Amino acid sequence: MSKKIKVAVFGASGYAGEELLRILLRHPNAEITAITSRKSAGEPVSSVFPRYTGSGLTFVAPETEKIAESCDAAILALPHGLAAEFALPLLKAGVKVFDISADFRLKSLSKYLEYYKTEHPAPELLKTAVYGLPERYREQIKNADLVACPGCYPTSSILPTAPLLAAGLVSTKNIIICSSSGITGAGRKVDLPYIFPECNENFRAYGVVGHRHTPEIEQEMAFAAGVDEIAINFVPHLAPINRGINSTILMEAMPGCTLEKIAAVYEEAYGNEQFVRVLAPKQTSNTKYVFMTNCCEIGFNIDPRTNRVIITSCIDNLTKGAAGQAVQCMNIRFGLDEAAGLI
Amino acid sequence: MSKKIKVAVFGASGYAGEELLRILLRHPNAEITAITSRKSAGEPVSSVFPRYTGSGLTFVAPETEKIAESCDAAILALPHGLAAEFALPLLKAGVKVFDISADFRLKSLSKYLEYYKTEHPAPELLKTAVYGLPERYREQIKNADLVACPGCYPTSSILPTAPLLAAGLVSTKNIIICSSSGITGAGRKVDLPYIFPECNENFRAYGVVGHRHTPEIEQEMAFAAGVDEIAINFVPHLAPINRGINSTILMEAMPGCTLEKIAAVYEEAYGNEQFVRVLAPKQTSNTKYVFMTNCCEIGFNIDPRTNRVIITSCIDNLTKGAAGQAVQCMNIRFGLDEAAGLI
Amino acid sequence: MSKKIKVAVFGASGYAGEELLRILLRHPNAEITAITSRKSAGEPVSSVFPRYTGSGLTFVAPETEKIAESCDAAILALPHGLAAEFALPLLKAGVKVFDISADFRLKSLSKYLEYYKTEHPAPELLKTAVYGLPERYREQIKNADLVACPGCYPTSSILPTAPLLAAGLVSTKNIIICSSSGITGAGRKVDLPYIFPECNENFRAYGVVGHRHTPEIEQEMAFAAGVDEIAINFVPHLAPINRGINSTILMEAMPGCTLEKIAAVYEEAYGNEQFVRVLAPKQTSNTKYVFMTNCCEIGFNIDPRTNRVIITSCIDNLTKGAAGQAVQCMNIRFGLDEAAGLI
Amino acid sequence: MSKKIKVAVFGASGYAGEELLRILLRHPNAEITAITSRKSAGEPVSSVFPRYTGSGLTFVAPETEKIAESCDAAILALPHGLAAEFALPLLKAGVKVFDISADFRLKSLSKYLEYYKTEHPAPELLKTAVYGLPERYREQIKNADLVACPGCYPTSSILPTAPLLAAGLVSTKNIIICSSSGITGAGRKVDLPYIFPECNENFRAYGVVGHRHTPEIEQEMAFAAGVDEIAINFVPHLAPINRGINSTILMEAMPGCTLEKIAAVYEEAYGNEQFVRVLAPKQTSNTKYVFMTNCCEIGFNIDPRTNRVIITSCIDNLTKGAAGQAVQCMNIRFGLDEAAGLI
Repeated sequence: MSKKIKVAVFGASGYAGEELLRILLRHPNAEITAITSRKSAGEPVSSVFPRYTGSGLTFVAPETEKIAESCDAAILALPHGLAAEFALPLLKAGVKVFDISADFRLKSLSKYLEYYKTEHPAPELLKTAVYGLPERYREQIKNADLVACPGCYPTSSILPTAPLLAAGLVSTKNIIICSSSGITGAGRKVDLPYIFPECNENFRAYGVVGHRHTPEIEQEMAFAAGVDEIAINFVPHLAPINRGINSTILMEAMPGCTLEKIAAVYEEAYGNEQFVRVLAPKQTSNTKYVFMTNCCEIGFNIDPRTNRVIITSCIDNLTKGAAGQAVQCMNIRFGLDEAAGLI
Repeated sequence: MSKKIKVAVFGASGYAGEELLRILLRHPNAEITAITSRKSAGEPVSSVFPRYTGSGLTFVAPETEKIAESCDAAILALPHGLAAEFALPLLKAGVKVFDISADFRLKSLSKYLEYYKTEHPAPELLKTAVYGLPERYREQIKNADLVACPGCYPTSSILPTAPLLAAGLVSTKNIIICSSSGITGAGRKVDLPYIFPECNENFRAYGVVGHRHTPEIEQEMAFAAGVDEIAINFVPHLAPINRGINSTILMEAMPGCTLEKIAAVYEEAYGNEQFVRVLAPKQTSNTKYVFMTNCCEIGFNIDPRTNRVIITSCIDNLTKGAAGQAVQCMNIRFGLDEAAGLI
Repeated sequence: MSKKIKVAVFGASGYAGEELLRILLRHPNAEITAITSRKSAGEPVSSVFPRYTGSGLTFVAPETEKIAESCDAAILALPHGLAAEFALPLLKAGVKVFDISADFRLKSLSKYLEYYKTEHPAPELLKTAVYGLPERYREQIKNADLVACPGCYPTSSILPTAPLLAAGLVSTKNIIICSSSGITGAGRKVDLPYIFPECNENFRAYGVVGHRHTPEIEQEMAFAAGVDEIAINFVPHLAPINRGINSTILMEAMPGCTLEKIAAVYEEAYGNEQFVRVLAPKQTSNTKYVFMTNCCEIGFNIDPRTNRVIITSCIDNLTKGAAGQAVQCMNIRFGLDEAAGLI
Repeated sequence: MSKKIKVAVFGASGYAGEELLRILLRHPNAEITAITSRKSAGEPVSSVFPRYTGSGLTFVAPETEKIAESCDAAILALPHGLAAEFALPLLKAGVKVFDISADFRLKSLSKYLEYYKTEHPAPELLKTAVYGLPERYREQIKNADLVACPGCYPTSSILPTAPLLAAGLVSTKNIIICSSSGITGAGRKVDLPYIFPECNENFRAYGVVGHRHTPEIEQEMAFAAGVDEIAINFVPHLAPINRGINSTILMEAMPGCTLEKIAAVYEEAYGNEQFVRVLAPKQTSNTKYVFMTNCCEIGFNIDPRTNRVIITSCIDNLTKGAAGQAVQCMNIRFGLDEAAGLI
């Protein structure tokens, strides 16, 4: 039996942290060496997550240098800005870093400034950071020191659109994405809009202009299409479910685009991917069918009256949209079975 | 004190029927003279709706002629096709008919055939039927014998878009509507996809091409814009809430369209409407804030990067989207306070 | 038309306040003259409750003396302790006070101290305060200056048990109450245990020993039974619904107790009560059937194997459990139709 | 690496079946050789459970003899009555049978007749069937041919009470259990009371007298206490969650019963059990903390005023209450790691 890789989880007391623990505790080739939480340092994991009582884990303060000594990999489930601060010393110590925050996703410093309202805290790292979407960047992830795991909305948006854009089946203009997310997407945030009676039996859009995931989606779409820029409309919504994202995406079909051609392009792109499930034409995806899995489920259709391709794409925001994808990247980086811990 | 108008409710055992009873039982100027249900005929209303035990109502079989003798108004909460059958004898008997079904909404027989897969059951009535959206057709409703109450999705879609189309602030091309509805929108339907564990913690699109409400929305948009035809993309979704619809609508801004101009057009259209609430620019609507009310709440914004107007529009699908709007029309038709029973 | 009574609502920005506004805004014989909120003073009601935009109301600071000048009645939806402070000056100014807090419910100062961990702030008022459960104390409410509206759990517990205890059909020993409440029962509280992902898909007991509503239930049970003391077990639970309480109550049947006798006692007690609905024997109540109504729905059964009477009792915690009951008391006090605003 | 045991799942298209597939598909020492469904025979598993598309499984008709040829173990997720029919030929063929139905749980034929209203279909098997609660019957399960897996309510009720009854810390009289279950507890049942709008935002008791799980709980309590009979009150409720059971249990403390003694008895009983988590005294359990796990979480307290022990006990009804427990038993029977597939 091969040695287990040692993993530290930074920011382990949020929902992404909770999901990381769930995955890593049953990962056959990984062991958790540290879980950090400023607020809960010194307390047993059960003080925050009673379900992990049996793990015997204890939160520690995020002392990166000390933690770096005894880990091979670090997964950062921290707020943006903070993540970059932590990544630097960890990388210096030779630890492979898988960052779930937004800090290393955007290649453009000016976009980062525009959307995050702050100068990038570690611009020199941007060049080496690899975008952690395995189905698009598997080869690069294999050798990456720093993996920038995609946002939840971007994961659900890029997976179904990138192959179609690359194949020229859809236009790069007039792309509309209406996404709906479960409430854990907002983090473990104690704020009036997120208490139960405000969310339950409610459905609403928010951030309809300028949501921070917009430039990330646009960047990856442009890369896929081989163009300089794509400008989309991305409209996020909050649905009263704990977990899950559905993205409904409308794109203009290019001449010759048919359901069969879309199916063929998807087959080519994802036929061998175990975490992407493309439905038969005209079917629609369900968040329920990816709940607590690392899968992205994709449905597609064409409206002949308006000549639009209509895609539905579902992920679990905490798994494929955060913790699961980070572990998938880690597995790739360390030469493990890509699905280890994820089924 | 003026005499109360006598109202019969046909198809009273569904969710729209339940909401009609709620409204009519506290309506100061109306009394219920009959509630029909084939399945529950002879049984007290409490057998289906315990909350109305105190009303002493009993379901009767839908014998239109007999019922017509003792009512001034009939509200039909019946499946399409059936509603037209019932409307004919009621109208002949001089009863004013408010139909919540789809039977008289479309002016085009061919669209009816295309979307409902059956010949229209009473084409001669189509000419006289008035579309029951008071904020658009109040004057016609005042004299109508037959009012075709709009569908739930169309109500939430037409109210925010019609004034902008009429004012030329937005293009008639490339209109996208992503709507999400509570599960009562499917009716009181006993079918696997609607049992609790299948809907709860799930979010999904359905009918992404060719939903039956599409031609109704397009018809009213075209009327508002003064054009022959508009083709939109309408994508409905199911959200795990009992009641409520949110429609997120994207339209291309015409040159000169600004937030101020949109606000002004809305003020002109709805400044005096008690059942339309237009939010301040850049705010988004919540289904929670219209829950169990007859209101439509409208938010609007413009994305300068894509030059699109983005609207969010919420109603309660059973109130403004069905029962409440029918009663609002009835109030108008009988010269009552338009809000009677609705606050 | 008679003059409307003038009502001030103190603490109007919580969930009980929201429900009070809903009821009072459609009350035919009442008008709101002031709504107070320390935090939102000066802001329009729409800043907290968009649905009441049309009311034109504005929050003011809780200056009791000034507000007292222009109101006949004050409804206090304030935390315990604070309510008593406000009641004093209002009563001095001749305003009738309907207190939804716990301050005046317990007749025993020592019980208040034991359960609320503080000396009672206005012991002299306890003697004159009337317990605001109309179905038990209607006559006293008619002349009360200060009405102590019951808690939500007590309302659902006392209504079904008091008549049986008074009639001697059940024992005063070994009474067990398992209640489950919707999350609004915790108030509009911004705290981690109440955010959506912590409550949704969760069900849990809390405060299984010593919940503050226990002595209130015991006091009223003892009054009904004509005994000095009753000690019960009251176990509250949180259910992931917005509104509603179900109390499942187990009591030992006394010799001769039958379903028929229970039905007869209930008929005697509640046959003429419009806000109590007693189901046929062996049926169970549903929170759904009292949702947003002022009703208490009561089901009862007897287990012959254990000789226990098993009662289920449902109310809406914000209506019959708070705001609705306060208005019902106010209606009684001012000689209005008891159901005004409540149907 | 040892050979995997071959498992057939009968009745695989319900919710317990779905959970069995989830567990078995990631079980390191088991492989699924057949999944049966009368209705879906011949269809791929994805036709019912899209999430298992990747498994390549296909439903087959429940031909026991044919299936028996290629399996070591059969797990029956069938309705009672039917399960016994299937068990017979499977056992004859040497297959170990793990039955999730109620058919072999009760040792008393007359109780079976009384509660299930039918003669027992295979009384001869009752004698050899072992009650599949590993924490109570592990040794017997090791050699059992037929394991009768406990019901969901009984699992949550017996685990926390049996050790206390065995230790004489609580009385065998006046035991009250108020349980609340998620809606999957009703099975994948297409019936009006289970559609979303009827369950959502509703909480209600049902079957308050004579629920079928009552004699099973009483049987195991009596065994634990070493008495002939125990008669309890068991009151089940439906909570609007997909999965999870909370049982709140009230028992009379015997003289000398203290929190410390309860803790000690639990430590003795469950200190080495990986699927029972006993909380610190006075804490209460949460269904959320056992969601999709095979754990039972137990909280306990004593009310000194009434001298009652109050226990809260949570399980996931589909895991520890059905599929997970069956797999735990199977692991024990085949000498595998007891937790295989269950973490």
